[in-house]
Amino acid sequence: MAKLKILGIPGSLRQHSYNKGLLRAAQQLVGPDAEIETFEIKNIPPFSEDDEKNPPERVTEFKKKIREADGILFVTPEYNYSIPGVLKNAIDWASRPYGDNAWANKPAAIMGASVGPTGTARAQYHLRQVFVFLNMHDMKQPELMVGAAGQKFDAEGNLTDEETKKYLKRFLDAYVAHLKNLHHHH
Amino acid sequence: MAKLKILGIPGSLRQHSYNKGLLRAAQQLVGPDAEIETFEIKNIPPFSEDDEKNPPERVTEFKKKIREADGILFVTPEYNYSIPGVLKNAIDWASRPYGDNAWANKPAAIMGASVGPTGTARAQYHLRQVFVFLNMHDMKQPELMVGAAGQKFDAEGNLTDEETKKYLKRFLDAYVAHLKNLHHHH
Amino acid sequence: MAKLKILGIPGSLRQHSYNKGLLRAAQQLVGPDAEIETFEIKNIPPFSEDDEKNPPERVTEFKKKIREADGILFVTPEYNYSIPGVLKNAIDWASRPYGDNAWANKPAAIMGASVGPTGTARAQYHLRQVFVFLNMHDMKQPELMVGAAGQKFDAEGNLTDEETKKYLKRFLDAYVAHLKNLHHHH
Amino acid sequence: MAKLKILGIPGSLRQHSYNKGLLRAAQQLVGPDAEIETFEIKNIPPFSEDDEKNPPERVTEFKKKIREADGILFVTPEYNYSIPGVLKNAIDWASRPYGDNAWANKPAAIMGASVGPTGTARAQYHLRQVFVFLNMHDMKQPELMVGAAGQKFDAEGNLTDEETKKYLKRFLDAYVAHLKNLHHHH
Repeated sequence: MAKLKILGIPGSLRQHSYNKGLLRAAQQLVGPDAEIETFEIKNIPPFSEDDEKNPPERVTEFKKKIREADGILFVTPEYNYSIPGVLKNAIDWASRPYGDNAWANKPAAIMGASVGPTGTARAQYHLRQVFVFLNMHDMKQPELMVGAAGQKFDAEGNLTDEETKKYLKRFLDAYVAHLKNLHHHH
Repeated sequence: MAKLKILGIPGSLRQHSYNKGLLRAAQQLVGPDAEIETFEIKNIPPFSEDDEKNPPERVTEFKKKIREADGILFVTPEYNYSIPGVLKNAIDWASRPYGDNAWANKPAAIMGASVGPTGTARAQYHLRQVFVFLNMHDMKQPELMVGAAGQKFDAEGNLTDEETKKYLKRFLDAYVAHLKNLHHHH
Repeated sequence: MAKLKILGIPGSLRQHSYNKGLLRAAQQLVGPDAEIETFEIKNIPPFSEDDEKNPPERVTEFKKKIREADGILFVTPEYNYSIPGVLKNAIDWASRPYGDNAWANKPAAIMGASVGPTGTARAQYHLRQVFVFLNMHDMKQPELMVGAAGQKFDAEGNLTDEETKKYLKRFLDAYVAHLKNLHHHH
Repeated sequence: MAKLKILGIPGSLRQHSYNKGLLRAAQQLVGPDAEIETFEIKNIPPFSEDDEKNPPERVTEFKKKIREADGILFVTPEYNYSIPGVLKNAIDWASRPYGDNAWANKPAAIMGASVGPTGTARAQYHLRQVFVFLNMHDMKQPELMVGAAGQKFDAEGNLTDEETKKYLKRFLDAYVAHLKNLHHHH
């Protein structure tokens, strides 16, 4: 059986982003039945409905990657108690035009890291409401919210905390099981 | 007494946007004690924390306009059951860097138009959660959610429906009263 | 193959509730592969953690019904832009004590009727956030939000509107398909 | 000038509730310009619209206390990522019947304690959405979410942690200032 293909999407443009580091750790820790490819959203311009029928090449490529994936893994910071604008903008592009929603029926999972104690919880629940419209099948439990990131990543944004790695491994194993269940049918 | 200054921010980049049209109608219908200036978010680039201490000129101008305003009026569509990414991105820029949040203590109101029946309700509640972090004082009632926009605006996005104008007038009068109350103290 | 067992839970105690009527219509319209049993939450008392290890008999019966079901169908009004307190209270009882959450891993769907135009949307999204903690697998699309209920039900709360019946039938068929997919694995 | 009257409402029925203890600490720490009276929701029965025009005496008393207060202070745990059903039920009663919403125009604040790390954040944002319908004027900042409550309260639910007391004092001072601002006008 071919490996399951997971598309990992960091929600931050920052070079040494904790969330990019969390995704790199996930690429190393994911089990043998799956592999995680990263898609950086940095060159996706602001969305306008006037342009949705002639999207930039980067968006076309993004939608192709989404469609080829067996599952999507959002790795996102929280900005102002919600989803970063840059991540929501990328999601908006890939959902349009009407009838050409690349996200439809994709299994999804969310994880995130933040400096504060609540670890991106508020952004994650907003993202789950977006999934209702997009018709994405999100894993519910376990959740992964890494708070106090300043103590768990090094200066380049690499995850160094062993306990977080353990939670991350458990999270990834559950997600692969979720994908296997749903893969069978869709 | 000088007129109250309201900064109106449309959440869409589309040229003939219903929300831009709703804001133009508001500029005409607002009472004599206030005036509404529009700020278009179209040239605001994707936010990165790496650039937040050297923001583009358009962002500096945006923050200046926000700070000069007595109140903010968001006029927003709903994308994928939440705030448009382009609007959230503009909000993110103006909230940063840490300690330089231009939105702090500003009174706010939200209105929005959509083609479907629920009229941007879901985006509005997400935006209200963002206000908690930004510390903005949002008017609660009345709310203005214009559904079935295709029947209430013309092809250039001008509001033509008389009943909606009546609701809009009532909404604006309540917002001006809200601003007068809060203006006194902050 | 035995019929799939769906437990339908109305979120209102009102005798001629539109939501109870919507659930009765669902019992008639559901396809041959499933049957819907109703559980009325009316005799469930206010929850206190002090009593959770000695729950009232009605709660014990409720948890048994939930566990025997292949899927849960919440049929709920919206009170004050959220879940009715009486429904949330029933959910709280059945989730406790710690380690004895009757809802765990159950597939779920939500529908609702209201007098206003948005048709219980706000309550439904709050309920979906509750599912994240409870670990319930909610169908995302289609959604069923019946607005303007005063025109679609008779005085006893029976659904009379033919177009709504059509949407309800489509919703139920999708839910039965969702149950079949998940039933296979859990 | 008479002292400002704050009505404190604990969202739990548990005898040694951390949230009741947090409210008792608030009664001691509030400044000289305000006093906090507690209203226990324990004898409020499940709400039914059929009974809303003949409410039980305890509900009539509750609505009277709300109307006499200058501000409301909700002190709530989080159950299943949302508002406890028992608290929401009390809110529902006091909002009805239509046209007799006791909460209208009241300034509000929320605080809460929980055993887990996020300290009732999710329940608090749901409650803020309820305020939009009820037309309550909620203080945005500072927020008070007391996580890891097991280490900050004693066995009778009394707050013992000095740092939390400091945050609580700051929160109460800000709320009294919020009440003074709004009291002037309503």
